Amino acid sequence: MDSVNWDSLWYNVHLATMGEANDYGIVRDAAIAVKDGKIAWLGRAQDLPSGYTVQVSFDGEGCWLTPGLIDCHTHMIYAGNRSNEFEARLNGVSYEEIARQGGGIVSTVKATRAATEQELMQASLPRVLSSLREGVTTLEMKSGYGLDTPTEVKILRVARQIQHDLPVRVTTTFLGAHALPPEFAGRADDYIEEVCERMLPNIMAQGLADAVDVFCEKIGFTPAQTERVFQAARKHGLPVKLHAEQLSDQGGAALTARYQGLSADHLEYLSDSGIAAMKEHGTVAVLLPGAFYYLRETKYPPLAELRAAGVPIALATDCNPGTSPMTSPLLTMNMACTLFRMTPLEALQGMTIHASKALGLQGKIGSLQLGKCADFTLWRIERPADLAYMIGVNPCVGSVFSGNLRSLL
Amino acid sequence: MDSVNWDSLWYNVHLATMGEANDYGIVRDAAIAVKDGKIAWLGRAQDLPSGYTVQVSFDGEGCWLTPGLIDCHTHMIYAGNRSNEFEARLNGVSYEEIARQGGGIVSTVKATRAATEQELMQASLPRVLSSLREGVTTLEMKSGYGLDTPTEVKILRVARQIQHDLPVRVTTTFLGAHALPPEFAGRADDYIEEVCERMLPNIMAQGLADAVDVFCEKIGFTPAQTERVFQAARKHGLPVKLHAEQLSDQGGAALTARYQGLSADHLEYLSDSGIAAMKEHGTVAVLLPGAFYYLRETKYPPLAELRAAGVPIALATDCNPGTSPMTSPLLTMNMACTLFRMTPLEALQGMTIHASKALGLQGKIGSLQLGKCADFTLWRIERPADLAYMIGVNPCVGSVFSGNLRSLL
Ligand SMILES: [Zn+2]
Ligand SMILES: [Zn+2]
Repeated sequence: MDSVNWDSLWYNVHLATMGEANDYGIVRDAAIAVKDGKIAWLGRAQDLPSGYTVQVSFDGEGCWLTPGLIDCHTHMIYAGNRSNEFEARLNGVSYEEIARQGGGIVSTVKATRAATEQELMQASLPRVLSSLREGVTTLEMKSGYGLDTPTEVKILRVARQIQHDLPVRVTTTFLGAHALPPEFAGRADDYIEEVCERMLPNIMAQGLADAVDVFCEKIGFTPAQTERVFQAARKHGLPVKLHAEQLSDQGGAALTARYQGLSADHLEYLSDSGIAAMKEHGTVAVLLPGAFYYLRETKYPPLAELRAAGVPIALATDCNPGTSPMTSPLLTMNMACTLFRMTPLEALQGMTIHASKALGLQGKIGSLQLGKCADFTLWRIERPADLAYMIGVNPCVGSVFSGNLRSLL
Repeated sequence: MDSVNWDSLWYNVHLATMGEANDYGIVRDAAIAVKDGKIAWLGRAQDLPSGYTVQVSFDGEGCWLTPGLIDCHTHMIYAGNRSNEFEARLNGVSYEEIARQGGGIVSTVKATRAATEQELMQASLPRVLSSLREGVTTLEMKSGYGLDTPTEVKILRVARQIQHDLPVRVTTTFLGAHALPPEFAGRADDYIEEVCERMLPNIMAQGLADAVDVFCEKIGFTPAQTERVFQAARKHGLPVKLHAEQLSDQGGAALTARYQGLSADHLEYLSDSGIAAMKEHGTVAVLLPGAFYYLRETKYPPLAELRAAGVPIALATDCNPGTSPMTSPLLTMNMACTLFRMTPLEALQGMTIHASKALGLQGKIGSLQLGKCADFTLWRIERPADLAYMIGVNPCVGSVFSGNLRSLL
């Protein structure tokens, strides 16, 4: 090869490449080159090939450079606000009373149904921007606050619009089976039929979903209902994931694994057989410490067992108005360390390489590797562990998305 | 009075005045006027006096306007970084091993002693700016990572410099009795003598301290040693406060109250007699949920008893590298609600009116009131409870400090 031509080059950086080896993949005094939105070269600056040409070079000023963070489980797109319920509960009002006053998820569904697509976008943007400011380059977004076809479609359209309007990769998940809408009270099986036979085909026809999810729980849908939705997803060629074992062991993780699910999420009550099934089928464990914190949960996900089995562990914010009104990937990492006793390395893996697997995108994103998308974030930190250690200080200097330096207003 | 002349006027805002009444003190569709850095008028916009003149008017665009937040307990000024210890502990290294390797507070003392004043400023600035970006207008800053005269002086000089350089009010607290420096190993009484007879007079001669604090604990200093420091403070006319009852009941809160202390802080192990003494002498209870969270404490401060006694409850970040590496006042408010079950109102009182009392500044700041300093913050929120509810999204639109709109780089 006589010459090397790149679009851009970042030098004077330290890399945490976050590959498959169980370490940060540190390369100090490094450089990373981009061509056509992909990583074209990376290594020690002293090993840069001679005679390369590049359109533009950036001095990283000694920052650390990691893969862009991936928040692989969010419910960010909703209207309304539940701080009034938060306040009422802390003033001693019971859940029952709040529900009687139209509170809980029903209030979010009502507000989301009532919002225009533009209003829904406006309501969600501060959450999205807040996430991006902390170095996120890929966001999963679930529907599930519509519970009828037009609103589920509206939510997923807004998610697609965000990918179009902002420098972020968005993956969409259809979560029609999030809760039973008031119109179907007492008729859960009928609603599941609606989800499978009308909502999903409609959403598929518009190309709005990349995956399908269900809330499988005593207060959600049964394993049998979950499986019906999984079968419909399979018919449409969509991968599945599951809200599993959050409040009780429903065998949801094993069910998900049997369907080659991308991930089972929450998992406080995950059993050994669930772990074994996940390991066998390559299903990722997504832990959501924000919900654990917010609900003052005391039952811990079986971290030691997941580690022992070698199941990849991802982390996500679970951003939602009821049980984790939180957008911060960095605080999620701190909570994983502080509450679950994960290591800072596991926390960063959880929001990069392992999160990419939870979205089925490990071939494109999640690590700094030749040929992967040039999605990365620069941090003014002393070492990678700082990302999980500090709370409140945002050391994100900027992100590069698909090779382009991103500016956020 | 024939005419009213103001320097600035904020209109199209909703006020949460946070006065002495036990509510937010809400005034909707309000305006607030500033003259000579003080609040000169506030009320419903429709009640604005006729014929006023003003140099400049600002449209608040429907934002909420609260008193600037007050973080009344921080150890923000330090050099070094303890994320390596954080990581080591999570990888199973024992506290003893970390201490043997020079870790713990000793490592922060070493780094802080080694730093120049300018380096110490540079190391601390990201923490200060992060706090200001979340609407803080007053910051208390403690010494205590020097443990010798030159370094304690250096820390307090940096704190004073921050007040000089940045649009923020800084109060300084001399915490020489934070830990026993290695040079005084086994000679705690000698160190207390050093603190009282040499460090404090030196610091007073330079006008560097607004208050005196001690870490009274089995692993800190005894009540008798604490009292010696309190007597020295009294001799110099300085008010006292105390790190009290964090890990055990040492009777520190009652001791502080007997010295008319401004506040007793932490208080997980506070006794009924401590509460009674605090009530009698007007000593504020400062709760530090960040440290509670970070240490995974399970013993709760006696919130119900403090409420019943009518002791004012303030909140603070306790920002420090070892037990609460956190700068965020908003997350502190969320943790107070989520972990301690305080209400959003109590949380906001804790970072405004009650925090002003913990600093002895209730006559100047902490509420929106005629004649108080024009320190206030604008928030793009639907209601005041949003401040404690959301995690990660920073709704701070900007702050006014001493009447001047503040811009932060
Ligand atoms: Zn969820
Ligand atoms: Zn402290």
